[in-house]
Amino acid sequence: MQKINLQQKLSLFEEQWTPKVIAELNGQQVKLAKIQGDFVWHNHAQEDEMFYIIKGELYIDFPEHTVELGPGDMVVVPAGVEHRPRTKDGQEVHLMLVEPHSTKHTGEVEHKLTKHSYDWI
Amino acid sequence: MQKINLQQKLSLFEEQWTPKVIAELNGQQVKLAKIQGDFVWHNHAQEDEMFYIIKGELYIDFPEHTVELGPGDMVVVPAGVEHRPRTKDGQEVHLMLVEPHSTKHTGEVEHKLTKHSYDWI
Repeated sequence: MQKINLQQKLSLFEEQWTPKVIAELNGQQVKLAKIQGDFVWHNHAQEDEMFYIIKGELYIDFPEHTVELGPGDMVVVPAGVEHRPRTKDGQEVHLMLVEPHSTKHTGEVEHKLTKHSYDWI
Repeated sequence: MQKINLQQKLSLFEEQWTPKVIAELNGQQVKLAKIQGDFVWHNHAQEDEMFYIIKGELYIDFPEHTVELGPGDMVVVPAGVEHRPRTKDGQEVHLMLVEPHSTKHTGEVEHKLTKHSYDWI
């Protein structure tokens, strides 16, 4: 039971599109990520996914609408819903994710950005 | 899939020690709370609980140590671990909780602060 400071954890890595695990609870993992540019359209068949924005402006495209998020905003993407995160004006965005341990960040889409494991920091 | 802004949600209620639900994912609920003063010692036999501080300084006492948290800090309290949140210098603290739907905020302790249901805002 130790304090986890988000800014201190964010200072430990530079790589984009590479979520890092900082905590877990009840089968969920809490991850931090730095992203910039457009991600790939994907969904998670079984897993709801929470995005919480720490820095920057993030669009999340859905089939029928787009949500624009800034610091202090969050959204939950329900299981099975296609979505594409992309950053506004090419800026880097820092965000926190909460999702089940089993979640692959590109869903079933195999993409150059796909990671097959997540490091703890 | 709508944006949830934490400050806007916090503006919707004043009551302390009364967590409000703002989202759910994978059987977990995300709640906001305003607290001030000392809570009751308790544990959650089955549920891990995540605290994320939005405003103010919060102590969480454990049997062997105390964690001091400020804005941008978080901690996960594992299932079964006794803990007592209390605020520093009597200030009001705003925080986000992530915990299973089934979690009672005072655990099995029946206390004047115990709530038996949580409203969505």
